[in-house]
Amino acid sequence: MDVIEFKPSREQLVYTFGGNTPALKVRPGDLLKLWSEDAFNHTLRQSTDLSSQKVDLRYVNPQTGPFYVEGAEPGDTLVLHVVDLKPARDWGVSAAMPFFGGLTSTDRTATLQDALPDTTWIYHLDRSRNTVGFQARFGDFSVELPLEPMLGTVGVAPPAGEVRTSLVPERFGGNMDTPEMRAGATCYLGVNVEGALFSVGDGHYRQGEGEACGTAVEGAMDSTILVELIKGGGPLWPRLETDDALMVVGSSRPMEDSWRIAQVEMVRWFQELYGLHQLDAYQLLSQMTEVPVANVVDTNYSVVVKTRKSLLPSVKVYDGIHVELRRRAAAL
Amino acid sequence: MDVIEFKPSREQLVYTFGGNTPALKVRPGDLLKLWSEDAFNHTLRQSTDLSSQKVDLRYVNPQTGPFYVEGAEPGDTLVLHVVDLKPARDWGVSAAMPFFGGLTSTDRTATLQDALPDTTWIYHLDRSRNTVGFQARFGDFSVELPLEPMLGTVGVAPPAGEVRTSLVPERFGGNMDTPEMRAGATCYLGVNVEGALFSVGDGHYRQGEGEACGTAVEGAMDSTILVELIKGGGPLWPRLETDDALMVVGSSRPMEDSWRIAQVEMVRWFQELYGLHQLDAYQLLSQMTEVPVANVVDTNYSVVVKTRKSLLPSVKVYDGIHVELRRRAAAL
Amino acid sequence: MDVIEFKPSREQLVYTFGGNTPALKVRPGDLLKLWSEDAFNHTLRQSTDLSSQKVDLRYVNPQTGPFYVEGAEPGDTLVLHVVDLKPARDWGVSAAMPFFGGLTSTDRTATLQDALPDTTWIYHLDRSRNTVGFQARFGDFSVELPLEPMLGTVGVAPPAGEVRTSLVPERFGGNMDTPEMRAGATCYLGVNVEGALFSVGDGHYRQGEGEACGTAVEGAMDSTILVELIKGGGPLWPRLETDDALMVVGSSRPMEDSWRIAQVEMVRWFQELYGLHQLDAYQLLSQMTEVPVANVVDTNYSVVVKTRKSLLPSVKVYDGIHVELRRRAAAL
Amino acid sequence: MDVIEFKPSREQLVYTFGGNTPALKVRPGDLLKLWSEDAFNHTLRQSTDLSSQKVDLRYVNPQTGPFYVEGAEPGDTLVLHVVDLKPARDWGVSAAMPFFGGLTSTDRTATLQDALPDTTWIYHLDRSRNTVGFQARFGDFSVELPLEPMLGTVGVAPPAGEVRTSLVPERFGGNMDTPEMRAGATCYLGVNVEGALFSVGDGHYRQGEGEACGTAVEGAMDSTILVELIKGGGPLWPRLETDDALMVVGSSRPMEDSWRIAQVEMVRWFQELYGLHQLDAYQLLSQMTEVPVANVVDTNYSVVVKTRKSLLPSVKVYDGIHVELRRRAAAL
Repeated sequence: MDVIEFKPSREQLVYTFGGNTPALKVRPGDLLKLWSEDAFNHTLRQSTDLSSQKVDLRYVNPQTGPFYVEGAEPGDTLVLHVVDLKPARDWGVSAAMPFFGGLTSTDRTATLQDALPDTTWIYHLDRSRNTVGFQARFGDFSVELPLEPMLGTVGVAPPAGEVRTSLVPERFGGNMDTPEMRAGATCYLGVNVEGALFSVGDGHYRQGEGEACGTAVEGAMDSTILVELIKGGGPLWPRLETDDALMVVGSSRPMEDSWRIAQVEMVRWFQELYGLHQLDAYQLLSQMTEVPVANVVDTNYSVVVKTRKSLLPSVKVYDGIHVELRRRAAAL
Repeated sequence: MDVIEFKPSREQLVYTFGGNTPALKVRPGDLLKLWSEDAFNHTLRQSTDLSSQKVDLRYVNPQTGPFYVEGAEPGDTLVLHVVDLKPARDWGVSAAMPFFGGLTSTDRTATLQDALPDTTWIYHLDRSRNTVGFQARFGDFSVELPLEPMLGTVGVAPPAGEVRTSLVPERFGGNMDTPEMRAGATCYLGVNVEGALFSVGDGHYRQGEGEACGTAVEGAMDSTILVELIKGGGPLWPRLETDDALMVVGSSRPMEDSWRIAQVEMVRWFQELYGLHQLDAYQLLSQMTEVPVANVVDTNYSVVVKTRKSLLPSVKVYDGIHVELRRRAAAL
Repeated sequence: MDVIEFKPSREQLVYTFGGNTPALKVRPGDLLKLWSEDAFNHTLRQSTDLSSQKVDLRYVNPQTGPFYVEGAEPGDTLVLHVVDLKPARDWGVSAAMPFFGGLTSTDRTATLQDALPDTTWIYHLDRSRNTVGFQARFGDFSVELPLEPMLGTVGVAPPAGEVRTSLVPERFGGNMDTPEMRAGATCYLGVNVEGALFSVGDGHYRQGEGEACGTAVEGAMDSTILVELIKGGGPLWPRLETDDALMVVGSSRPMEDSWRIAQVEMVRWFQELYGLHQLDAYQLLSQMTEVPVANVVDTNYSVVVKTRKSLLPSVKVYDGIHVELRRRAAAL
Repeated sequence: MDVIEFKPSREQLVYTFGGNTPALKVRPGDLLKLWSEDAFNHTLRQSTDLSSQKVDLRYVNPQTGPFYVEGAEPGDTLVLHVVDLKPARDWGVSAAMPFFGGLTSTDRTATLQDALPDTTWIYHLDRSRNTVGFQARFGDFSVELPLEPMLGTVGVAPPAGEVRTSLVPERFGGNMDTPEMRAGATCYLGVNVEGALFSVGDGHYRQGEGEACGTAVEGAMDSTILVELIKGGGPLWPRLETDDALMVVGSSRPMEDSWRIAQVEMVRWFQELYGLHQLDAYQLLSQMTEVPVANVVDTNYSVVVKTRKSLLPSVKVYDGIHVELRRRAAAL
């Protein structure tokens, strides 16, 4: 196992999945220690910095990567285990950007109404208490919320020669914005191109499900990630595994389609894992799945379908690789 | 406090919100012990009973009620506290009905494809182990799942003289199908007509979020419910409170609209509760809310927006009525 | 053939489909001469009348009816032929109502933005030129547009005991808001209750497809309608026939579901009319149908799927009843 | 004016917008005579050729281009006038591909149902009668339909370094699949990259609105196109102009969002053309626009908002360039 540290310079930041030359080559088994810039590309540093003045939408969600995984071929399964996520700054930032977010009209859900006021919030970390502090912009209210670091964006290069902005969640992963992408999670992504060309970014110090205003507590992040590769078996849509649960992330529009995608994929997965008939898997999952929405704000909406392991007979998922990665992570 | 027991005869079952004469008059403070028939109207009793042969869609989701609440006027807030839910039979039933459910085309999401096979599953309760047993219909697999009783349907008469089938979730509550409607939950509904005319039904012995196949583990239910009334303040959309959380249920189509409804209502609620500016409430909730989907299978889809109380300064919600109802329930 | 004239008094206006006692009994073959009030219930009479001050949403889209059709039973086909539509006033009115319409957030597509300015436009008729005059409210621009009278709302009582506001388009017809409902059109509706209990209203002096701002050039209307009844054969969704085209109107949300409904129904209809296999009907219609959107502003969106008769071999539709009704109308 | 003929070899076909080196450089004013392959890439040549066996989805909708337009810079308006469209083969082809199309579940609207039968239809042209012949695959029915050639796909390279498959309709044009893209139409596209890099393909010998089964009467096409460039003024979404109408094409999901996009853009356009206030433009267009759906089958749904010129005072659109291009075309 090699340990590879990588902190991209500003020039090395990339803003798409696909279309970039690899930042580094890595091998299955490698441990990556990665630094990622915040989603606003460090343009919002105080509450007087307004997104309409500072943020260039072509340069948001900067990615750290892409990494070429040796041996990865189309059809394979890229395995990324999130060992640890640590805020790389002592403050995070969120913003209500004009015509961006869930409770405003957007360029898609277009209306003739005025935008909500462009507003920026700075959250200060208290590392001893493990919190981020919310401070009202239009009043005195303040509250400390638990620090719960996660990665908004994890993805590989798309198939068919496409290049997609890092704002998009899709089959290839990308900007899924689910709080489930936290330390301890293993992410399975289908490989579309030689080397997989994965990247990560969009660190969140915490995020509610739905990511209502369009942005989380955004912050630069130090991510520790174990890379593995399974030959073949590439899933159609991103899968997540934790000690407690199996998950699929569907991303599309309208939101019911995102759910349908994830729920169908979970049915297929259960048919494989337990040798179930399609209708039995459909029925059983109907009584078990949780459906925590990830985001309703990106160009595609992302919905997680989640099944608790504790409800079911134990089964080896991907030959037990999550358990093995947890073991390796614990030994670090 | 009066204790009122009511088990409707077959002739007393109703199938709509609105349009029915009250089954009983009750007073704020009353304790109701209600029996409700299962959603299939007791037509599916064994796995060989097929919904296409036995179920008449005009007579599903039979309701127990409606109850006329003395003093309730349009604009008031009906408060229903779920003290206890107990399965009234030793078995529940679920079915994949043709062209009904989330992973099939329907009369709305219409396609030219054939229906999935009409299939019925019987779940046996083990009261000592507190489980319901799933048994595969097309193989040997079986598993016991925790019994987690809930009410699929709780609602009042709609406004503007409408009468709606009990299959619909809407502003007036109805077929919201959220697992959050369990013992310990307090439901707040806006009153639309004199007497409120609420009813309950569609007991589920357990249900996954999304209710993927369109039906939960459906079963007759013994429900114990405390009724209260708050003059004025009727919420626009159904609200739920538990010891741990505040929730709003939005029901519409497409699913992002259900979410928008619930999230906006939560913003409004937070503005009131904490005196927050709209943008601060929007921001704060963006980092806190959970979004467990209720169902993606009814004529409207229902999405819950949920905020953990533990994340926030303590505040009196509806003058502390949930706490008071919990106290009364514990004293029974 | 009886000729029945009916102009409801204010007290006789109804606001729902279902839930009302019949205004009159009519017989198949009868000619109805009906007056209907405008959609705003005559509350907006000059451009300084604002909907937020004058319009009570419980009393909009007033209906003329319901009419009990002798002999009509559930499963039958009610046939309404629009002989003539004449504006009953010399002015029409349209309004951008707060949080109502297609290019604003609404109670469903909920956002935190401010409403668009509440604005009312009065259109004056020039009967000699057959036009309605648009006059800008915020400038000097004016233009005369052709008068093209249509009925926004035509429907029967819903099934299963439901009562629905006259704002809703659904299987039972209702507020479909399609410009295709003009003089010369024959509307086929499935009968759900004894007597059918149909009503009409929401006259438009003209309307663009989509009805973008939520309201057409609304006006009181004199409608001449021939009533017929076909025993059995009630269509699942409203159908329209003109000399030139066959149409189905689907109403649901999201809009693709409205289209799916109408397109599937058109496939079914073509299978019957031409004895086609489902896949051949699907294919043939894919190369022929027009899809003029009706409205994107009601509680359900309505989409018309339309097939030109000229493209196809002649066929007797409903035994040639449209041709017969046109003949009768011409003879009046 | 140069006349440039270009018939790509198989190796020169491209399958994305963006990501390709220019096939040719052209200048504003040039006349292009282009040959394009059919959407199935010539894999389906008889009705026994099945898409599941022959079609590789990575290589569909082959594009002819991209063409580098000299002088075109980001922010400019590319003007493409369709002078003439002539079928390049004597037969066209359509197919119901498994899990593709509007009346089937898809990879997005995912269900557990079986696919519709994979079926192919060959349409023979009769050039003297100007028709394409439909022949039922599952019966004897046949009918000749008018030949109405159009281009399914016209687009430029996307912004922000994206590369998109030619199956996608978006802001940059692409696979809009509207019958309005016929001879006589002028298309205005915002330029995103130097040289614009536009391409065309996906010729249809005819297509119904909605493109229900997912494919039109697909065929190789000889297209004659005049290229012009307007400095600046690049529209946000594709615009079309004919002698009779102005149009905007919105492409997104759900379909109401596609409509909102196009309708808002039409409002903005009218504000510019007639100096109207936003609310007056909104109102006026509400009573005038037609909304012919383009497709409900692509990865984004496309909706056209269309305004008849005859309803309005004459106005110079883009300085009268459409009229000028019509003049030039007539002089050829």
